[in-house]
Amino acid sequence: VPNDKYYGAQTVRSTMNFKIGGVSERMPVQVIRAFGILKRAAAEVNQDYGLDPKIANAIIKAADEVSEGKLNDHFPLVVWQTGSGTQTNMNVNEVISNRAIEIMGGKLGSKDPVHPNDHVNKSQSSNDTFPTAMHIAAAQEVNEVLLPGLQKLQDALEAKSKEFSQIIKIGRTHTQDAVPLTLGQEFSAYVQQIKYGAARIKSAMPRVYELAAGGTAVGTGLNTRIGFAEKVAAKVSSLTGLSFITAPNKFEALAAHDALVELSGAMNTVACSLMKIANDIRFLGSGPRSGLGELILPENEPGSSIMPGKVNPTQCEAVTMVAAQVMGNHVAVTVGGSNGHFELNVFKPMIIKNVLNSARLLGDVSVSFTDNCVVGIQANTERINKLMNESLMLVTALNPHIGYDKSAKIAKTAHKEGTTLKEAAIKLGFLTSEQFDQWVKPKDMLGPQ
Amino acid sequence: VPNDKYYGAQTVRSTMNFKIGGVSERMPVQVIRAFGILKRAAAEVNQDYGLDPKIANAIIKAADEVSEGKLNDHFPLVVWQTGSGTQTNMNVNEVISNRAIEIMGGKLGSKDPVHPNDHVNKSQSSNDTFPTAMHIAAAQEVNEVLLPGLQKLQDALEAKSKEFSQIIKIGRTHTQDAVPLTLGQEFSAYVQQIKYGAARIKSAMPRVYELAAGGTAVGTGLNTRIGFAEKVAAKVSSLTGLSFITAPNKFEALAAHDALVELSGAMNTVACSLMKIANDIRFLGSGPRSGLGELILPENEPGSSIMPGKVNPTQCEAVTMVAAQVMGNHVAVTVGGSNGHFELNVFKPMIIKNVLNSARLLGDVSVSFTDNCVVGIQANTERINKLMNESLMLVTALNPHIGYDKSAKIAKTAHKEGTTLKEAAIKLGFLTSEQFDQWVKPKDMLGPQ
Amino acid sequence: VPNDKYYGAQTVRSTMNFKIGGVSERMPVQVIRAFGILKRAAAEVNQDYGLDPKIANAIIKAADEVSEGKLNDHFPLVVWQTGSGTQTNMNVNEVISNRAIEIMGGKLGSKDPVHPNDHVNKSQSSNDTFPTAMHIAAAQEVNEVLLPGLQKLQDALEAKSKEFSQIIKIGRTHTQDAVPLTLGQEFSAYVQQIKYGAARIKSAMPRVYELAAGGTAVGTGLNTRIGFAEKVAAKVSSLTGLSFITAPNKFEALAAHDALVELSGAMNTVACSLMKIANDIRFLGSGPRSGLGELILPENEPGSSIMPGKVNPTQCEAVTMVAAQVMGNHVAVTVGGSNGHFELNVFKPMIIKNVLNSARLLGDVSVSFTDNCVVGIQANTERINKLMNESLMLVTALNPHIGYDKSAKIAKTAHKEGTTLKEAAIKLGFLTSEQFDQWVKPKDMLGPQ
Amino acid sequence: VPNDKYYGAQTVRSTMNFKIGGVSERMPVQVIRAFGILKRAAAEVNQDYGLDPKIANAIIKAADEVSEGKLNDHFPLVVWQTGSGTQTNMNVNEVISNRAIEIMGGKLGSKDPVHPNDHVNKSQSSNDTFPTAMHIAAAQEVNEVLLPGLQKLQDALEAKSKEFSQIIKIGRTHTQDAVPLTLGQEFSAYVQQIKYGAARIKSAMPRVYELAAGGTAVGTGLNTRIGFAEKVAAKVSSLTGLSFITAPNKFEALAAHDALVELSGAMNTVACSLMKIANDIRFLGSGPRSGLGELILPENEPGSSIMPGKVNPTQCEAVTMVAAQVMGNHVAVTVGGSNGHFELNVFKPMIIKNVLNSARLLGDVSVSFTDNCVVGIQANTERINKLMNESLMLVTALNPHIGYDKSAKIAKTAHKEGTTLKEAAIKLGFLTSEQFDQWVKPKDMLGPQ
Repeated sequence: VPNDKYYGAQTVRSTMNFKIGGVSERMPVQVIRAFGILKRAAAEVNQDYGLDPKIANAIIKAADEVSEGKLNDHFPLVVWQTGSGTQTNMNVNEVISNRAIEIMGGKLGSKDPVHPNDHVNKSQSSNDTFPTAMHIAAAQEVNEVLLPGLQKLQDALEAKSKEFSQIIKIGRTHTQDAVPLTLGQEFSAYVQQIKYGAARIKSAMPRVYELAAGGTAVGTGLNTRIGFAEKVAAKVSSLTGLSFITAPNKFEALAAHDALVELSGAMNTVACSLMKIANDIRFLGSGPRSGLGELILPENEPGSSIMPGKVNPTQCEAVTMVAAQVMGNHVAVTVGGSNGHFELNVFKPMIIKNVLNSARLLGDVSVSFTDNCVVGIQANTERINKLMNESLMLVTALNPHIGYDKSAKIAKTAHKEGTTLKEAAIKLGFLTSEQFDQWVKPKDMLGPQ
Repeated sequence: VPNDKYYGAQTVRSTMNFKIGGVSERMPVQVIRAFGILKRAAAEVNQDYGLDPKIANAIIKAADEVSEGKLNDHFPLVVWQTGSGTQTNMNVNEVISNRAIEIMGGKLGSKDPVHPNDHVNKSQSSNDTFPTAMHIAAAQEVNEVLLPGLQKLQDALEAKSKEFSQIIKIGRTHTQDAVPLTLGQEFSAYVQQIKYGAARIKSAMPRVYELAAGGTAVGTGLNTRIGFAEKVAAKVSSLTGLSFITAPNKFEALAAHDALVELSGAMNTVACSLMKIANDIRFLGSGPRSGLGELILPENEPGSSIMPGKVNPTQCEAVTMVAAQVMGNHVAVTVGGSNGHFELNVFKPMIIKNVLNSARLLGDVSVSFTDNCVVGIQANTERINKLMNESLMLVTALNPHIGYDKSAKIAKTAHKEGTTLKEAAIKLGFLTSEQFDQWVKPKDMLGPQ
Repeated sequence: VPNDKYYGAQTVRSTMNFKIGGVSERMPVQVIRAFGILKRAAAEVNQDYGLDPKIANAIIKAADEVSEGKLNDHFPLVVWQTGSGTQTNMNVNEVISNRAIEIMGGKLGSKDPVHPNDHVNKSQSSNDTFPTAMHIAAAQEVNEVLLPGLQKLQDALEAKSKEFSQIIKIGRTHTQDAVPLTLGQEFSAYVQQIKYGAARIKSAMPRVYELAAGGTAVGTGLNTRIGFAEKVAAKVSSLTGLSFITAPNKFEALAAHDALVELSGAMNTVACSLMKIANDIRFLGSGPRSGLGELILPENEPGSSIMPGKVNPTQCEAVTMVAAQVMGNHVAVTVGGSNGHFELNVFKPMIIKNVLNSARLLGDVSVSFTDNCVVGIQANTERINKLMNESLMLVTALNPHIGYDKSAKIAKTAHKEGTTLKEAAIKLGFLTSEQFDQWVKPKDMLGPQ
Repeated sequence: VPNDKYYGAQTVRSTMNFKIGGVSERMPVQVIRAFGILKRAAAEVNQDYGLDPKIANAIIKAADEVSEGKLNDHFPLVVWQTGSGTQTNMNVNEVISNRAIEIMGGKLGSKDPVHPNDHVNKSQSSNDTFPTAMHIAAAQEVNEVLLPGLQKLQDALEAKSKEFSQIIKIGRTHTQDAVPLTLGQEFSAYVQQIKYGAARIKSAMPRVYELAAGGTAVGTGLNTRIGFAEKVAAKVSSLTGLSFITAPNKFEALAAHDALVELSGAMNTVACSLMKIANDIRFLGSGPRSGLGELILPENEPGSSIMPGKVNPTQCEAVTMVAAQVMGNHVAVTVGGSNGHFELNVFKPMIIKNVLNSARLLGDVSVSFTDNCVVGIQANTERINKLMNESLMLVTALNPHIGYDKSAKIAKTAHKEGTTLKEAAIKLGFLTSEQFDQWVKPKDMLGPQ
C-alpha cells in the first residue's frame, strides 16, 4: 500500500487482480459519494444501537470527507471487479477506517481503534451497501443533473413554441410536403416529448428510492438489529433531501436490479425523444442554400477544416450521439439486469456505471443543447412563407367541398404542369377562383372548425 | 381484386408492391380489431356532426364485423408496407365501405353509397387513425393478456412463497454458498419482481390511453370539427371499457411513439425479471443427481430423444426465450421510435407489431409457466436440509461474537480439512461447543434481531 | 391426436403445454424443410451402417415429403417450446415415422415397423439434429433469399451510379451544403455498402456450413458410428448443393450458437447500410416543392387518405422498418446466444426464428426496394443544377490559391449579403473575376488533381 | 487559451460549447495517437508534393510527440462534440502547428510559419482524417490488446483441455444431468469458441484496414493530389506495421461506418462466447459445499465483507460484466452507424469510443481472466467421479441394445426408487448384470464406435 493512501490490502489486491480498462474505467465518483453518505448514516444508527460514540464520530467525520469528494484519490478501483462491488465497499471501509484511525490518533493499517469490517461495515454487507449506494447515486444524478437539464430544455422549447405561434409553415409527413401547421405547433410536440420524458423518469423513481440497506448478505438482515434498515433509510433521506425508504423486500433488492433497468428504460425513451427533436432541428436548419432552411441555427464555431464558412448543427450532433449511447447503455443494463442468480445480481458495478452515464450525458447535453442551440434558434420566415405558398398539399382543404378524388386530380395536375393549385383547379373546372380563395386559407387549416 | 373479397384497389396494389415476408408477417389482427372499434366510434361521432344516419349505421355494422374478427380474411397486407400504415387504413376503409355498400344493397367497388375516403375515413387521416389503432390494440393486449398473465403468475408464486415459508435453506451469492434464508423468502423476491412488473406496465398506460384521433394529417385536426377528437376518444373508451382520452398534443401523438417505447421499456423490465426467476428455478431444480436439486419441477414431457428418462425444465426455457425476444423487440421499437421525422413517425406498423408481440408472449408465457411449472413445484426438503447443514457460511453468525477475522479462520480451516465448522472452531480454541450451539442457529439467521 | 395428422403424442403434449403466441409463432417452415433434408441424409447413412433398406427407403420418402413442404400442416408446434427444439425434432420423428409406416402399409401410431426414436432418430439426438437443421435452414435462406436480394439491389444501384455519372450536384455533410460531387459518386457509396454487405454475409458462412450432426446428446457422438458425422454432412451438402461439412468440434456446436450470432451481426451491418441508403433516398426525393427534390421517386400508390395527390417514399419506409427489426432481432439472438449453459444452449428455436426472419426480410425488402423504387429513380437535373450553382461551398476550391481564412471570409460575406461567391470575392479584393472563373469549376472539384 | 497549452481558439471554443460528461468522457487517447501517426504520414507525403521541408520536418517532429503520448494533456475535448470529430481534428492541427512553430522558433498562436489548416491539415479534411484516425486506432487496439488477449486465453484453455483430457464427468444439458464427456472435451468447446472469436475479429479487419485519407470533404479528394491517398495509406502502414490500404471508395468511407459496425458485431460474438464460458466456470466451480463443485477456482481475495471465508468467482464476474458492456456498446455503434446522412456520418466520436472500449475491455479481461482464474483452475476429481457414477443418464448407452422405451423405464424406476441403474435394470428383467457391466461403460460413451 502506498504510504500516502488510506486504502488497504484488499484494495491493493483488487488493483492487481483487475487490470482492466485503466483510469477511465474507475468506479464513478457518484458511487463513492453515495457510499460516504451511507457509511455516515450507518454509523449514526449503529451508535443508536450501541457503537462507541468516539468511533462513530470518527467514522462520521471520515465518511463526510468521502461524500464531499475530498478523498477521491483514494479510490483507485475500476468497475470491472467483483460483480457485487465488494471490493469498492472494502475500499470505502478501508479508507474510512484508516482516516478515522488517523482522526483518533491511531496507526494507519492497524485496524485499531476503527476496524473496517467490524465498525465501518457494522450491520452491513457489500450485498446491501453496494445496491444502496447505487440507488443513492442514481437518485442524486437524476435529481441534480437529469431532471434540471430536461426542465431547462423544456422551458426553452416552450418559449420558442410561443415565439413561433403565428408562423404558418408547410408540414411534412413521410419527409414529404403535407398540410400546414404553425412552427409553434411543431415545437409544441417537442415540448410535450420532453415534459413527458421528465414524467417518465419521475414515475420510475419510487422504486429507485427503495434502499437495500439492512438486508446484509442475502436479504434476511442477519447481523442487523430490528429497525436498523428503516433508520438508515431515514438518515439517508435526511442527508440527501430525497425521499428514500427502506425496500419492502430486501431479497428482491439484492438479487435483481429491475428498478435501475426500469429507470434506464425511461432514459431510453428520453433518448428517442431527443434523437427525434435534434434530427428535426438539423434538417429544418439545413442549408444555407440547398437545404430546407426554415430555421436559422446559432453559428457557434467554424464547421469545417477544409470548407471555409461552413456552419454545422453540432449541438444536434452531440444530442444524437448521446441518444445512441444511452440506447446502448440501456442494452448493457438490460443484459446485466437479467443475469442475476439466486440471492445476488453480480453485474452491479456495470449497471450503475451505465445508469449514471446515461443520466449525466442526457442532463448535460440537454443544457448544452439549450444554451448553445435552442435559445438561439430563429425562424427564417421569408423561406417559410415561400415554401408554404408553393405547397400543393393545401389542396386538402378542398376535400370537404369537392371530395378526395377531384382534389387529388387538382394536385396531380398542378404537379405535372408546374402550376399553382388555383390554376389547376380552375382549368379543371372543379371550382371558381372565388371558391378557391374562400376555401384554401392556410390560417383556417390549423385546427378543427 | 378477387371476387370474394371486400378490399379494393389500394389493398391489391399494396400486396403487389410489398412482397415482403409472407403470411406470417401480416398486420396483427389486434390492429385490425382496433380499427373496427375506431371506425365505429368515428361513424357515430360523424353522425352527430351530420353524416347520413343510414350510411353511418351501415358503417357501424360493418365496423363491428371487423372488430369481431369476422372479416379477418379481408386484410392481407403485411407489416412491411408504408410506415404510416396508410395502406392498412385504406384496407380497412375499403373493406368497411364495400361491406356497408353490400348491407345497403349497393354494388361492391362502386364507392356508392359509402365512399371509403369520404365516409368511412371522414374526419380522419391514416396519420391519426393508425396511431389510434396502435394505442387501442396495445391497451387491449396489455389488459386482456399481459396483466392477467402477470397476476396469475404472481398469485402462484405468492402461494409457493407461503407454502415454503418454514423451509430453511442455504443462500447463494455469486453462485456460491452463503448464509441461510427460507425458501419462502427466496420466492418472495420473485413475487415482488412480478408485482412491480405489473406496476411498471400500469405506470406506462396513462400515455398509451391517449388517442391521436382528431389530429388528422399533421396534428392540427384539419377537416375535423371542434369536439370530434374528444367525442371519438369517449366512444372508444365506452366501447372498450378502457380509460382512453384524447391526446393533449396531437402533433406529438403523430410524430413520435414515445408512449409505446415507454411501454416496451416496461415490458423489457418484466423480461429481465422473468429471465432471473426462470434461471433460478431451473438451476434450483437441476439434477436429478448432479445438480442443486432443491426443487422438484413437474415432469411434463419426455426430455430427450436420446437420453431415456430425462426431464427438462422446458417451461423455464420458454420463459427465457420469450425474455430474450422481448429484449430484442424492445430494441426494434427503440430504433423505430427514435427515427421519426417532422410531423410523422413512419415506423408505425413495425413498432406496433413488436409491442403486441411482447405483450402477448409475456402474457401467454406467464400463464404457461404458472400452469405447467410453478403450481407444481415441490421442495426437496431432504436435499435442502442436507445442504444447509453442511454449509460453512453459517459461520457468519459468529461475527458479532468473535469478529470477522476469527470467523474467517474457522471457515477456512473447516474447508481445508473437510470438517464441520464446529469442529474447526473448537480446534482453533475460539469458542466452546456450547457457545457454538447457542450462536449458530440457522433459525436465528433469518432476520434482524 | 387428430385422425388426419401424422404427428403423435409428444407433439400433442407440446401443443397443450405451450399455448404461447398462437399460429403466427409456429416453428418456421424453413426449419421443417431442413429437418426433412437431414432425416433423409441420416436414413441414407444409417442404411450404410445396417439399417433395414425397406425402413430406410420409407423414411427417405417421407422425409422428402417433409422437405418438399407437403406435410407442413402436420407441424403445429410454436417456437416457444423447449429451448433445445426437442419437441420439434420429435414432431418430425413422429410425422416421418407415421408417414413411413403408412407407406409400408402399417398402422399409424403403432411405431411399427418404423419407430420414431429407434429408426427415424437413429444415431441422432435433438441436441445435434436441431442445430443441424438451424444451420441448414439459415444457409438456405441466406443463399436463396438474402444474397440474391442483395445482388439484385447492388446491380440496380450500380446501374444508377453509372447513369448518373455526369450529373454534378451539391454534396451535403452534417446535413449542410458542402462541396460538389456527382450523383453517380453518391450512388457509388451505396453500391459499395451493399457489395460489402454481401461480403460480410459470406464471410460468416464457413462457420454456418459446419453441422452438429453426429454429436448426439452432448457432443461426444455417443450411439453413433465412426464416420457417421462426416457422411451425413456430405449427404446434406449433396442434397442442398451447399458446402456443408461436419463441425470440427461438436461440443461447441451444441453448447453455443456463435456462428448464428456472427451471421446475425453481419445482417445487422447490412441493416445499417440499408437504413442509411433508404434515408438518403427519401430525403433526396423529398418534396415535391418543399424538400430537397434532387431525385424523383416512382409514384407507386396514393400516399395519403386525406391529402390528395400525395406521393410518399413508401419503399424506403419498408426498408427502414426492416432495418430496425433486424437490429432488434440481432439483440434477441445475442441475448440467446450468450445464455447457454454447459453442454447445451437452450435458446435454439428463438435464435433460428430471428435469424431466418432477418434473412428473409432483408432479402425480400431488397427485391421490393429495387423493383418498386431504385430502378425507377430519376434525377431532377434542373433542381440539382440550380442548387449546385447557388452553393457557397464551392469556395473550397479557393483554399489552395488564397488560403483557408480568406476563403472563409468570402463565403461568410456572400452568405450575409445574399450575393454570389464571385461577387463577394471581388468585392473583398481577394481575386479577380478571371481568377474566380478559372479556379472555381465544379467539374474540377470531383477528384484529386 | 491557457499559456501552457499548445491548443488554440477552436479547441477552447469546443470546451465551452460542449460541457458534457466531464473528464472521463474525453476523446480516447488511442484516437489522439492515431492522429499523430496520420499527421506525420500526411506531412511526409505533402513534402513529396512540394511542402517546404522545414515545415514538414517540424510537423513530423510534433506529430511524433503526439503519437508518443507526450502531449496528451493538450487534448481536453470530450467525445460529445461535433459528430464529424472536426473539433478534435482542429485540436490536433492546433497543437501540432503550435508545437512545430515552437520547434522552429516562432510565436505560439501566430499560425506562422506553420498554419494549422494550410500546413498541418494540408490535403486533408476532418471528414477524411477523423475516420482515418478511427480505423488506425481500432486496428491498433485490436492488434495490440484484443487479439493478444484472446490468444492468451485460448492457449490457457487449450492447456487445461489437455490437462483434463482423461477426466470423465457427467454432462449437463438443459442444466440437467446428461451423458458423460471428459472435462477436456468440455473445455475444448471453450477453446473452439475463442479460436473462432479471433477468426471473426480477423475476418472484419480487411475493411478496417481501408483508410479514408485522401477523400477530403465529401470523398472526391478535392484539394488533394493524385496519388496522395495511396501514399498516405502506405506511410501509415509502414509507421504502424499494419496492412492499411487506401479505401477503394472514399464516399462510402466517409458516409458510413459499416466496417466498424462489422467489427463491433464480431466483438459482440466474442462477448457471447465469453459470457457462456465464464458462466459455465462459475457454476462448475460453485460451492464449496452446496454447488456443483467440479472445478476448484483460485482464491484471489476475500469474497465477502460479512461472510468470513467466502471465495467468489470474481474473475468470471468481471468477464460477464464486460460481455454485457460490449453488447451494449454494440447497440450504440449500430444506432450510430445506421444514422448517417448523405456524404457524412456524424456519429464518429461516439462510434470509435465504443469500439475502442469494447476492444480494450475484451482484451484486458481475457488477460485478467487467464492469469487470475483459468491457469489456476483445478479439477475436483473426487467430486467429479462421485457425480458421474451416480448418474442415471448412463442409461443412454443401453438404447442400441434394448431400445429407447425400455431404457427410459429403467431410468425412471431408479429415479423413483432411489436405486442405481443396474439394480433397476435387473429388477425390471431387461438385462443381466453382465450385460449391464459390458454395455454401460462411461469410457465407451465418449465418442462414436
